[in-house]
Amino acid sequence: MTGTLYIVSAASGAGKTSLLRALVRDEPRLVVSVSHTTRAPRSGERDGVDYHFTDEPGFRALVAEGAFLEHAEVFGRCYGTTRAAVERELAAGRDVVLEIDWQGAQQVRARMPEAVSVFILPPSRAELERRLRGRGQDSETVIARRLQEAVAEMSHYDEYDYLVINDRFDQALEDLRAIVRGRRLRLEAQRERHSGVLRELLGARD
Amino acid sequence: MTGTLYIVSAASGAGKTSLLRALVRDEPRLVVSVSHTTRAPRSGERDGVDYHFTDEPGFRALVAEGAFLEHAEVFGRCYGTTRAAVERELAAGRDVVLEIDWQGAQQVRARMPEAVSVFILPPSRAELERRLRGRGQDSETVIARRLQEAVAEMSHYDEYDYLVINDRFDQALEDLRAIVRGRRLRLEAQRERHSGVLRELLGARD
Repeated sequence: MTGTLYIVSAASGAGKTSLLRALVRDEPRLVVSVSHTTRAPRSGERDGVDYHFTDEPGFRALVAEGAFLEHAEVFGRCYGTTRAAVERELAAGRDVVLEIDWQGAQQVRARMPEAVSVFILPPSRAELERRLRGRGQDSETVIARRLQEAVAEMSHYDEYDYLVINDRFDQALEDLRAIVRGRRLRLEAQRERHSGVLRELLGARD
Repeated sequence: MTGTLYIVSAASGAGKTSLLRALVRDEPRLVVSVSHTTRAPRSGERDGVDYHFTDEPGFRALVAEGAFLEHAEVFGRCYGTTRAAVERELAAGRDVVLEIDWQGAQQVRARMPEAVSVFILPPSRAELERRLRGRGQDSETVIARRLQEAVAEMSHYDEYDYLVINDRFDQALEDLRAIVRGRRLRLEAQRERHSGVLRELLGARD
């Protein structure tokens, strides 16, 4: 029973990370993929759990091997998702979530067109700004730049299969759960998962 | 905002009718379509609510007009779903459920290929038989015939988009809810429903 690969993207301020954390909690059949990165671990981060921490030559070697489903450089640090990490989980029957931006999403779609993609949006410009302002410690210039980046990311919403509007957290979480649960009920998946039941129901009558 | 047309089929004994009743309860955006029939109303049935009760010439006239999305004759009584009944609800933005058999499903798919179809199965042969025996008042011959009809209906499961196994009622109900909720989150539907939000989020920056 093969799992489904989900791509989830959002502008920062959409609440993606909290939503995904809540989505995979109590859901052993759904995991967030662990990326490789060349940046240093922050306090509390564990290798193999939060990231696979790698040095630059190691990362470049993986790139050269074609090991990455997607990778990118952000402020001089490299980030990427290996195909092996994803395929191990899928083969074990787990659904895998990749938390990546629109550029990573395009790379993954090109390599695994069966991936299902979800874009999470904030409910309004005012709410987006409120969330981007955070605790009010940043300058207007920093906030204006964040807003501009958010709009640039959101402009790719129509490359995705599903749109979730994160207005109320619990409703957006239910939306994500419904997408995952619904996909598992599709004929091809169910026929594989319940082949025994189907054989017994349709088999020779006694 | 156009609704989605759902076709739901099942062998008798799968629990379809109770599931659909629970599904549309407290869900104003989802309705079960009211069919036309030439059979007489049973005690408590109301015209226009349970069925549109019609005489035979009236039914034949609708057939001749091509008014039916699907229709069938069962034990000398005619049953059918008019395209007008369905399209009125869809145009009002409601999702519509047709509770029909595999033959009706084939007719509807031919006329409205965008319909989404769901087949509900019992969890095992033993449970199916237990449900078909009902209150134990029927002869073995009657039960054997019902079982045979159920197997014949179930043999068409692979013509459907989704499979739901009704083992535990509440879980099967959640499955149906997830299918409906998930479909509403697809890009095309959301983009239409939230066009204002999208315009505001992506529009000119202030």
